[in-house]
Formats: sequence, C-alpha cells, structure tokens
Amino acid sequence: MQDGTLLAAVDLGSNSFRLEIGRFEHGHIQRVEYLKETVRQGGGLDEERNLSLDAMQRGWDCLARFAERLAGFERTHVRAVATQTLREAHNREVFIERGNAILGYPIDVVSGPEEARLIYQGVSRLLPQSDERRLVVDIGGRSTELILGQRYQAQAVTSLRMGSVAWSTRYFADGNFTAAAFEAAETAAKAMLDETLQVFQPDAWDVAYGSSGTIGAVGEILAMAGHPPGDITREALDWLLAKLLRAGHASRVRLDGLKEDRRPVIGGGLSVLRAVFSLLGIERMQVAQGALRQGALYDLLSREWPETDLRTSTVAGLMQRFAVDTPHAQRVAQVAGTLFGQVATKDSERAARKLDWAARLHEIGCRIAHSGYHRHGAYILDNTDAAGFAQPELHHLGLLVRAHRGKLRKLELDWSDAQFTLQLACLRLAVALCHARRDPDMDGIRLERKGARFVLRSRTGWAALYPQSAHLLREEAQDWLRTPWELVLELG
Amino acid sequence: MQDGTLLAAVDLGSNSFRLEIGRFEHGHIQRVEYLKETVRQGGGLDEERNLSLDAMQRGWDCLARFAERLAGFERTHVRAVATQTLREAHNREVFIERGNAILGYPIDVVSGPEEARLIYQGVSRLLPQSDERRLVVDIGGRSTELILGQRYQAQAVTSLRMGSVAWSTRYFADGNFTAAAFEAAETAAKAMLDETLQVFQPDAWDVAYGSSGTIGAVGEILAMAGHPPGDITREALDWLLAKLLRAGHASRVRLDGLKEDRRPVIGGGLSVLRAVFSLLGIERMQVAQGALRQGALYDLLSREWPETDLRTSTVAGLMQRFAVDTPHAQRVAQVAGTLFGQVATKDSERAARKLDWAARLHEIGCRIAHSGYHRHGAYILDNTDAAGFAQPELHHLGLLVRAHRGKLRKLELDWSDAQFTLQLACLRLAVALCHARRDPDMDGIRLERKGARFVLRSRTGWAALYPQSAHLLREEAQDWLRTPWELVLELG
Repeated sequence: MQDGTLLAAVDLGSNSFRLEIGRFEHGHIQRVEYLKETVRQGGGLDEERNLSLDAMQRGWDCLARFAERLAGFERTHVRAVATQTLREAHNREVFIERGNAILGYPIDVVSGPEEARLIYQGVSRLLPQSDERRLVVDIGGRSTELILGQRYQAQAVTSLRMGSVAWSTRYFADGNFTAAAFEAAETAAKAMLDETLQVFQPDAWDVAYGSSGTIGAVGEILAMAGHPPGDITREALDWLLAKLLRAGHASRVRLDGLKEDRRPVIGGGLSVLRAVFSLLGIERMQVAQGALRQGALYDLLSREWPETDLRTSTVAGLMQRFAVDTPHAQRVAQVAGTLFGQVATKDSERAARKLDWAARLHEIGCRIAHSGYHRHGAYILDNTDAAGFAQPELHHLGLLVRAHRGKLRKLELDWSDAQFTLQLACLRLAVALCHARRDPDMDGIRLERKGARFVLRSRTGWAALYPQSAHLLREEAQDWLRTPWELVLELG
Repeated sequence: MQDGTLLAAVDLGSNSFRLEIGRFEHGHIQRVEYLKETVRQGGGLDEERNLSLDAMQRGWDCLARFAERLAGFERTHVRAVATQTLREAHNREVFIERGNAILGYPIDVVSGPEEARLIYQGVSRLLPQSDERRLVVDIGGRSTELILGQRYQAQAVTSLRMGSVAWSTRYFADGNFTAAAFEAAETAAKAMLDETLQVFQPDAWDVAYGSSGTIGAVGEILAMAGHPPGDITREALDWLLAKLLRAGHASRVRLDGLKEDRRPVIGGGLSVLRAVFSLLGIERMQVAQGALRQGALYDLLSREWPETDLRTSTVAGLMQRFAVDTPHAQRVAQVAGTLFGQVATKDSERAARKLDWAARLHEIGCRIAHSGYHRHGAYILDNTDAAGFAQPELHHLGLLVRAHRGKLRKLELDWSDAQFTLQLACLRLAVALCHARRDPDMDGIRLERKGARFVLRSRTGWAALYPQSAHLLREEAQDWLRTPWELVLELG
C-alpha cells in the first residue's frame, strides 16, 4: 500500500455510528477525520428482536451522510462493521441490504469475539509499545467485550450480551436512579460475568484499559470533576454512583462532561462498569484512545498482503480445531488453485485466496459426521468464531463448502455470480480429481472458460489410466447440465 | 436379565424386512424364530427421494404381520431398526409415525456408521472367539457397510450409498446383462470405494467376512454350483458374472439357489461385490451367519446395565471429540442428577441416565462458537455419528441441550411430556446453580414436584450468600411462567 492512501472504517454500534478516516503513512495510520452520530439503534429492538422501521431509518440517514464523505474511496480501503444490535436483529437483512446500497460499501456484521479482537487491535495500536499483559474492557450499547492480550495479540476474548442501552432499558426504564435499581442491575451484570472469571482472573493481566462508549464518557465526567484524567478508580465510581442516586432521575443529573446523548444510558452503563470492576478485581482502569474503528482500519492493512492476512492463520486454526485431514485438504487446495489459475481473470488474487481457504476447510464438517459433512461444514462456517472474518465472508466460504459435492440443481446458488461459479467449479473438479486421496496426475490437465462453458482437457490416455476419475468427471459434467453453465470434457 | 427372556429385533432394510426372536440364555441369545419378507422399499424412492405410498403400504402390511408375533413383548426387549431407505426418504416421518403405531414399538432410524457397528456386533457374536483382525462387508439394498474389527469391537466403520437395489435401478434398469453395463456399474462402485482405501487396506485385516443380503445369496448360488460352501473367491465371482452375461437378461438367468426375490437385484449386487473384491484386494470371503438383526439383539442386552451401556462411553467420546470442559460438565451432571433424584418417580433409571448424558454434552456446541452454543450442540447431536444411539435418542438429548438455556416460551416443546419436562427443569436449574463454574453449595437445596409445579427450597441465608445464583433462579422462575408449568422459589 502506498504512503498517503486513505482508509476508512465505519462502526455501526448499538448506541452510535462512527466514521474514522485515516491516512496510511510509514506503517501507521494517522487520523484524518472522525465523525460520530448518536443513532441509538439498540433501543429500537422490540420484544421479538426486530429492528423498528424508525431505527432503521435513523441508521440509513446516518449512512447516507457518511457515504457522501466516502465517495471515491476504493472498495478494499473501506470497512464497515456492525455489532450487537444487528447481530441480534431478526430482520437485519432488511437494514443491511438497503444500508449497503446507501453506503456504497458492504456492511459486515461481525461476531462478538471478532468485535473483541478488533477492539483489542484498535486499543493496542494506539498504546505505546510494551510487554505488559493487558485487560481491555469495552462496554457498548448492547454488548460488552473483554479481552486479554499482549502487544498486538489478543489472547482471550469474550463478548457478553449486556451494555449501556440494554441495561438502561431493562433496569432504568423509567429513568429513576434508586439504590434498588442499581443493585438489581449490578447483580444481573455480575451473574453474566461470573462465568468468565476462570479466564479473566486478576493475576492474568497487569494493566486494565477501557475503550470507547461508556468508559470514555465516565472518564470525561471524572476528569471534569477533578479526578486524574484518563484514570478510573473504584472510589471514583462510588462517587459517581452517589451523584446519580442523589439526582434520583436521569433527567435531573447535573454533571460537567455528561453529554446529552449519554444521559439516557449512563445508569445502565455505570452498573455494568461497576460490576466489571467488582467481579474482575479491578482497582483502576485507564481510558484508552483506540477502539473498534481503529482496529478495523489496521485490519484493512493486514489484508493487503497474504502473509499478514490474519484469516490465513484462522483457517489453519479451524482445520486443527475440527481435526481436518490436512494433507488431503492441502492437496485439494493445490489442485483447485491450479485450475483456478488457468481460468481466472487478472486481479483475482483475493478470490484465489478465498478458494484456497474453502478447499482447506471443505471437510471440516466430518468432525460432526461423514454423512452430509458438506452441510455440517457450511453450518460450522455460518456459526463459528473466526478471527479476521466477517460473517458474510464466512457465509461465502460456507456456500462453497456446502456446494462442493452433491447435486448442483438442488442448491439455490446465484449462477450469475461468475467469480463464485468459477471458484465452485474449480473446487468440485479438484475434489473429483483427488477422490482417491492421493495426488492426482495433473500432467496435461487444462481447464478453460468460454463464456458460461468450462472445458476440461486431458492428455491422451489419461482417461484409460484413471477410469474412476474419468467416471466421476463424467458424472460432474452431467450435473452441470442442470445449471445455466456447462462443463465440457475433452478427455484423451 | 433373567434366563429365558425373549428378545426381538426388527430390521427394516431397503430390500427386506426381517424379524428375529431370540431367547436370552447364559449370556447368549438362541434363535427362537426368524421371519423375512421381501418388501423392497428401496425401489420405492422417487427422484425427489420420497417414498411412494405403495412402498409405504407394503412396509406397513409387513409390520402388521410382525406386530402380531410381537404381542406381549416388553418395550425394552424389542428393537426395530431402519436403515438407508428411511435415512434417505424425505417423507420418512409419514412412514415412521404410522409404522410405530402398527408395530407397537418405536422404529429407530440409525445412521450408516451405527448400522455398520450393529452389523459387526451381529457377525462377531456368531463367530467362534478368535483374535483375528476382521473385515466385514455387508451389501444391502441401498447402502454398503465396511467394518474393521477384532473380537466384539468394531474399530473402523464406513457406510457408502450403494447397494443391490440402487445399483440395479441405476445400471440394469432394463434388466439387460451386458459387459458394458457391468463395467459401468463396477467403475462407479470403485469410485465410491476409492476414498475408503486409506483405512481399509489389505494389511489391516486377516479374514474377510460377508454378511446378509447379496453376499448370502451369492454364497448360496456358489454352494449349489459345487463351490466350497460359505466361501466366495474371485474366480467364483468371475464364473457367476460369465453366467449372467451368457443369460443376457435377469429374467433368463437359470441358477440353482437364486431365489426369485433376488433375481431383480443380483446384477447390481454382484457389481458392487466385485468392486469390493477388486479394490480392497480380497481373494476370498467367508459368508457370515450373523447380521444387523443379531447385532440389535445383543445391543438390547448391553443396555440393560449402565456399566455395559455402550452409549455411556460414546458420550465420553463426544465430550473428547468436541473438547468439552469436563469438570464443569460433570459438575452440572451431578447437580442435575441430584435434583432429578429428588423429584423422579420410581423406575426412572433410564431417564436419569439420559439426563446425565445431556448434562455432560450440554456445552458440546462451544467447539463451534460460544454464541448460540446450545443451538450448535443440538445441531451436532441431530447429525453426529454416535455409536449405540438411534437418531430419535440423539434428538431427545439434542432437545435438552437446545433448551437448557434461553427463553422457554420460544421453544416448541411438548409440555405434556412430564418426564422430559422434569429432565429439562433439573438441567436448567443445575446450569443456573453452577453458573460460576464452581461446585455450588447444595446444602439444604431441595426440589419437589407437585403436579405441574416445581418448588425449589434453600436453607435460610443461602440467597444472601449467593446473590447472583438467587438472581438467576428468579429469572428462571419468571421464564417458567410462560409455560404450562410453574417454578416456585422458596429461598431462605
């Protein structure tokens, strides 16, 4: 990436949407611009976890304003990340589809653990280099992330369904600040935190940092009240609680540094923060500058080069977690890559990388059962935590895994997506060629593409030498007849 | 089990339904009766894999005749097992539901690997004791099972979607026996067998056995033609193929020992058998007496006692395969078992065993992702191979895992099933009590059941000592309000 390249991240949070634009310079990213709008989408989820039209509209309006600023950015230089509210919303597709069109860049809904990892990226990139073991806490609108990490590496992540918006709705619905309400809210938060204690023990970290939202707001209030800036202590939280209790109602709180958009959710946010301090044994916490959006920017950087692409090591981790037959997975990946190289257009390095991952993961479902393993693999990819991946990317890999065997006509695929069809054809052919779980004889095997037709050629004598492979390829060609594409065999 | 107890197994195969009745005597099972009817349900699957009404009716009629013979058998002394055709049929529930009612005993659809394991059980129990390493092959109507085993232990199992009915339909639809048809059928079978070669190598076994169906029929024909009885060699298969080719059509084959109900499927069966001999490097195969139905009978025996119940070790295997946090799983199992013991009626030892398994497996889905792990766990149990379990049993465990957390009202459960509700309540309470992943203080905790009401009591002071636990229990009680049951807390 050239120095001076502009990168942008959009964080579609439950409380606010944020846009961060940075310039890549000497391996770092310098802030160019930062916009924040309080959209409070997280309050627009109803009982059935559907996002109200009103909450959607607020989001779309905000995205339209961001889009104006993003006009002209390259697609690979923008990352839009959505978190808990859209993770939860049953009707998220409605929002996302129109949101993609408005923003002009795809919105990635990321899993809770992936959100946590990006937060750690953002926080650690903006801290001085150090070997200290860090605890990072981010209390968002509807989820709270906890991370243990060292240097730029998150080592343990967890994401809990509690946050300032959710807890305010649940325990301070009428805005009243009573001791009983705070106690109920803190107890509930502690009950959720309890199960994380085994990993997030006090002796597992040296310094605690808090990122973004609630913690930033609390930090500002405390600083304005004369506490040491950027430092949150237990005593200071007690002081803040006493202030809120004395006010008795959200509307009556008078505190310098408390912004109006924070007022409705400060009760819930403070309860969660106090529970975190209490249960995790924190005495003091530093307010960190970095957050999710910076993490997303640095993630864009690492994806530029295959060797720093976190997703490659994540795929290796998944192969191990699900005990994949690695030599066979690598064999299929190599054959698929060879075929793809023969038919792919220029600039398809990223598509080739995804095909490689899909091939490495195509048998991941065998850990569940051999029968229907392609379906199990797709299920795993649609649901697993995979560092560096957004959910739509995992779904794309899952579709390839799902469709790598079985009848094509039964699959509801988008046959107009040529890139996907190319990837799929190469993967299926590779699986057929490697059916005996030995390296196939690829000498003279050539794949060509002419419009919606694939032609697979072999050298003379190949089909007689490998009759089972030829049989499987002929079945494969039959299968493609039921699609808008065609596979023609010219086996010698 | 008392000597003299009668046990019965029904095998609902793709080609025939069979009933085997045996008498338990001194640890063995002596045949009392054996019935076989050629129902050929496997030929009744249409393109969309739906079983035709006609094929269903043939099955129901046969089950009605078996039911007459089974009148008076205890429920735990009958096992009905269905295999590939019903595994594949999309509309199997229609057949099973009425079939259960007609037979009077539940029909278990078992997975391919489980079928293979039962076949090995049946074959090995009827062979003389020996330390030989065995290869067992069973070519059924629509599936072929391969097993490697020693003594009574299956060590590797596989189940392939090919068999006498399926291959006859596909390659000998018109009944013509041509060299080209046999070559196509054998090539296709070899292509399927290819991927098993890594495990089923010639040096992995000492003696090859063939069980039931096709192999029994071929064995009889060969014996009638003067070949050594119970012995199948490559040369003999060549001789048989030559006979079929000379006849030219299924209807014109004249062979002593070929039964009329075997005639339509001998072409497909022989092709598969020849492919097995060729690819697995078999020179001779012995026809075994035991089969799936005897395996099912011996399985009934082992389930009588917890310590010989194969399912217990299968659960331990699943815990390992999916890297379950074992101490926590055991803790939840123990607490759930304690509570269940307080409310269960007599004779609920089997229900307690199932609750114990569900508790041990309740976090199995975490291997996929922590978020929604209860759903992932249910998915795994609905789809995994689990030796000793039939699919309905796994589904029952999966329902408990699915429902062990989250809102009860969202689940479509059968609240009239008191045993299930008892198991579920105990599991959910145990998970709440163990929420901190430490052993809970159970001193003075008592669960009672009064009709559709559970009452959970604690000793005085307990709730103050464990406020988070009390909070979770109160949330749990709220949750039960949305069901026909009630959870009343009397926490001291």
